Amino acid sequence: MAIGCSILGAGGGGDTAIGVLAALQAMEEFGPVPVVDLDELNDEALVMPCGGIGAPLIWIEKIDRGDEISRLIPVVERIHDATVAALMSAEIGGSNGLAPVAWAARAGLPLVDADGMGRAFPEVPQVTMEVAGISPNPAVMTDERGNVVIFEGVDGGWMERMERAMAVEFGGQGYSSEYQMTVLQAKTATARGTVSLAIRIGEAVLGAPHDPIASLSETIDAVSVIEGKIVDVERRVTGGFVRGSVTIEGFGAGAGRVVRLEIQNENLVALEDGEVRAMVPDIITVCDTQTGRAVHTERLRYGQRVTVIAFPCDPIWRSERGLELAGPWAFGYDLDYVPIEAIQIVDRETPISQDPRG
Amino acid sequence: MAIGCSILGAGGGGDTAIGVLAALQAMEEFGPVPVVDLDELNDEALVMPCGGIGAPLIWIEKIDRGDEISRLIPVVERIHDATVAALMSAEIGGSNGLAPVAWAARAGLPLVDADGMGRAFPEVPQVTMEVAGISPNPAVMTDERGNVVIFEGVDGGWMERMERAMAVEFGGQGYSSEYQMTVLQAKTATARGTVSLAIRIGEAVLGAPHDPIASLSETIDAVSVIEGKIVDVERRVTGGFVRGSVTIEGFGAGAGRVVRLEIQNENLVALEDGEVRAMVPDIITVCDTQTGRAVHTERLRYGQRVTVIAFPCDPIWRSERGLELAGPWAFGYDLDYVPIEAIQIVDRETPISQDPRG
Repeated sequence: MAIGCSILGAGGGGDTAIGVLAALQAMEEFGPVPVVDLDELNDEALVMPCGGIGAPLIWIEKIDRGDEISRLIPVVERIHDATVAALMSAEIGGSNGLAPVAWAARAGLPLVDADGMGRAFPEVPQVTMEVAGISPNPAVMTDERGNVVIFEGVDGGWMERMERAMAVEFGGQGYSSEYQMTVLQAKTATARGTVSLAIRIGEAVLGAPHDPIASLSETIDAVSVIEGKIVDVERRVTGGFVRGSVTIEGFGAGAGRVVRLEIQNENLVALEDGEVRAMVPDIITVCDTQTGRAVHTERLRYGQRVTVIAFPCDPIWRSERGLELAGPWAFGYDLDYVPIEAIQIVDRETPISQDPRG
Repeated sequence: MAIGCSILGAGGGGDTAIGVLAALQAMEEFGPVPVVDLDELNDEALVMPCGGIGAPLIWIEKIDRGDEISRLIPVVERIHDATVAALMSAEIGGSNGLAPVAWAARAGLPLVDADGMGRAFPEVPQVTMEVAGISPNPAVMTDERGNVVIFEGVDGGWMERMERAMAVEFGGQGYSSEYQMTVLQAKTATARGTVSLAIRIGEAVLGAPHDPIASLSETIDAVSVIEGKIVDVERRVTGGFVRGSVTIEGFGAGAGRVVRLEIQNENLVALEDGEVRAMVPDIITVCDTQTGRAVHTERLRYGQRVTVIAFPCDPIWRSERGLELAGPWAFGYDLDYVPIEAIQIVDRETPISQDPRG
């Protein structure tokens, strides 16, 4: 699951290494976590999305105590005057996809087989629930010290600003829940089946040690943007985000090619000779060429041998409201969105998927 | 009352000009505001302190809608499961002393003849309630857009950090209530009679147009630190505070003297030739020499003819916990507190008060 979350993360959502340890420890202590489909739950039951908010780079060193989300559950229940029936990852990508396993174990709650992104995104309202018109209120937030903040009457854009400011004040990172909803609402307002998908991706990578990227790409219909070496990384943490760019020089048939990825927590745009090779909200992931594992944006460094893959996002992001929230314009790029399936990939020496989604 | 609030503000708490207009309009629309002593209220009744938080410099242009505190009252009542019996100014100094008049008029509530400082201070926990051990939780905060934030489980120091970050995100200013308490608690946890005092100060200034500073100084037992001309102002808005310093050159018998005031929203320390002439938590106020009106830190400018006066703070600030929260050390000065009554004032040409408090 951790391998899958990382690949779905488009470079963001935070490193999963600590999440694996936290999940194993919590399950050892509190027992296994049932992963449930929304169809298995009562339509009126309350689903609580949850996740960390802040710069992934900081999560590597500033880990959670473990009880942050447990502390938020009674606050959510008190405000809604209802019992939380299941936790849900707000974003399946990166550590935010995996972390709810430990939180659900500690809370004795099942984990919904769905999430609010189908990938990772940097901002609070960049979730399928916002696209579906669910209110982010009340949002609740906490830190490792026990500070609790409740937001009411706040729209998605201001929720992002206010929670981000709080995360920065907390030292670059906090834990939050927004967009709580009923199971009935969640059925059409989430990216469904993504926990299972993460597990399938992991199995594909681990099951093909000699050619993990081909196996992975078959599973998710990915295309190769470039295979090569990282020759430059520019990265800084500012305002609670990791921002920067990474440059990759091609190998083999791709020799002489140079692709640059633009980053804001996630890989947003792949550029080559002024042409766009892949763009958000489609998922651009930098994989270690040998192991097939995703390399998170905060782990990128000079000299790494990588294959950049790109694959289609959840269809909800390709809607008008979806692109407004999370398309190239939402990140400041003056680019009209073109689905990855429609973009000509130059590096055809390694056509790793013959069946892209139409 | 506005004149008195400004003089009690030690340069901070914000300009009262807009507060006067807001109070007059609200009273015209909603009727007069009863000012009540705590002894007139039921011991178990709930007192709601309130005020603006942010840089006074910003309040001059970014005024409130008027309904911000009204919006917070039901939130406080819901959390406490009790009716708010009266509003109280969190700080009597500056606009925060006056603004609750308009808020009380709109809410149809009386205003308590007390406040949480007896002056103005820059930080949230620098209130007499914190000295008395009252919890700041739950704190509630809002802005002119309708965003509502509730803080729980937060200590005074973190409340300052978190509310300040939120005020900065709101555009430099927000409205909040902390340290709600019963009337019984308020009786020993507040600076009492300060609304009446502000009115008496105003009457003293207005009643002596030919020598307002002498009249004022008699009323509050103030001493003159220097009378002269402002020759330099260094001021910047950073992190939600006005910070800087102002330099005054003496006139008359004080010719040749130079006093520098250090500012963080309020006037904190008066220095002359490396000697301290007055220091926080005693109240240092820059007055227009002709009119006797206080000149707020954000209105200080080159060439103004001013008299700097200093007078004793509420005795609660001279306690160990009081000095810890609001003494020179709390503001980063490596100075042991010496009460204004014990500091030799050089400029004896204008001994405006012969009877300083012992």
